[in-house]
Amino acid sequence: MKKESSFPLFVTFALKIKSGIMEIINLLEPDEARNGLLMDALKNRKSTKEGYGEEISLRDLSDLLWAANGINRPETKDHTAPSAMHACDVDVYVCKSEGNYLYDAIKHQLKLVSKVNLLPSLAMTQEYVASAKQIVVLVSDNKRIQQINDPSRLVILGGIDAGIVAQNINLFCAANGLIVVTRGYMDSDAVAKGLNLEKGMHPMLNMPLGYR
Amino acid sequence: MKKESSFPLFVTFALKIKSGIMEIINLLEPDEARNGLLMDALKNRKSTKEGYGEEISLRDLSDLLWAANGINRPETKDHTAPSAMHACDVDVYVCKSEGNYLYDAIKHQLKLVSKVNLLPSLAMTQEYVASAKQIVVLVSDNKRIQQINDPSRLVILGGIDAGIVAQNINLFCAANGLIVVTRGYMDSDAVAKGLNLEKGMHPMLNMPLGYR
Repeated sequence: MKKESSFPLFVTFALKIKSGIMEIINLLEPDEARNGLLMDALKNRKSTKEGYGEEISLRDLSDLLWAANGINRPETKDHTAPSAMHACDVDVYVCKSEGNYLYDAIKHQLKLVSKVNLLPSLAMTQEYVASAKQIVVLVSDNKRIQQINDPSRLVILGGIDAGIVAQNINLFCAANGLIVVTRGYMDSDAVAKGLNLEKGMHPMLNMPLGYR
Repeated sequence: MKKESSFPLFVTFALKIKSGIMEIINLLEPDEARNGLLMDALKNRKSTKEGYGEEISLRDLSDLLWAANGINRPETKDHTAPSAMHACDVDVYVCKSEGNYLYDAIKHQLKLVSKVNLLPSLAMTQEYVASAKQIVVLVSDNKRIQQINDPSRLVILGGIDAGIVAQNINLFCAANGLIVVTRGYMDSDAVAKGLNLEKGMHPMLNMPLGYR
């Protein structure tokens, strides 16, 4: 504290910018030539409940988000994950202690949505989750699913669509030396509030990420 | 008709056996060394709405079922797909016009459960689906999910778990020259009845299979 206050104003300002949180993170172009056989990923797929705590590199995070629900056919803007009636209802968030980002698949960018620390609301009583440096949250926006009016059916379809995205992440992790676990357990109301979700947007799953 | 009735009895009997349906189909040992990169599978993942009609080989069906929800860690009997609270609630059925089979992941076998033709109840109004020679059906057994009593929550968790299995199938198909589409649309009551499902077992998704 003493040391900081002795800095001239412009240095303090520069440090604030340096320690500030970025509004936009431009992800790296997906590396579609990454090695890793699908059958090996299926063989190695597992849920890991310890050893989180490392920060994921930008390279891995960029490719993981593309795998999760990125654009795999740019000409039609179609996704790696199918969705109910092509609703593209699942949004992928990356939550870190300093702030929460929404993945924009078309721009392949992360956009800051809030600065609240949601890790405790995601981890709940599970300490190994709380130790993770980043937790992916999958949210289904029921409003995007057309032709269905029954709210209970909508939320089931949203769950199915979130499960599909989750398995893309699980397999990417299995193929690339990452650890992950698929969790439904969280304080959904706090997470929805912290991510500024609209009505009809449901946090379905959360997945802490780390390295093996 | 005339030709058939002119056969002697023992020939008719032999033909019936030949055209009869097997109670158990022993699948081939999963070929875990199959080629196909995960990133290529993600790149090529798509929903196909035409061109079904070919029968899947035993080699491909064996590996697809293992990929879907087979045992990837024999020592602990863990699966390629995670599930809510490790409930292993998703059963995989293979429906053909002549009968319907349940996949036994531990024995890596298909077991006949009924002989009713469910393809029309699965296809509904979609002719391209009705033309498929086999349709996979994913059923969640809510009774296996412990610690949760809320029926609406149970069915969401079952939907998530079915979505996870579905994406294993989608990626296997993308990597191996098969076509597939993930569908929620079906006559669920007729399918549940035709598969002899117990109360609490919900048909979540169906996926016709064919070759590109």
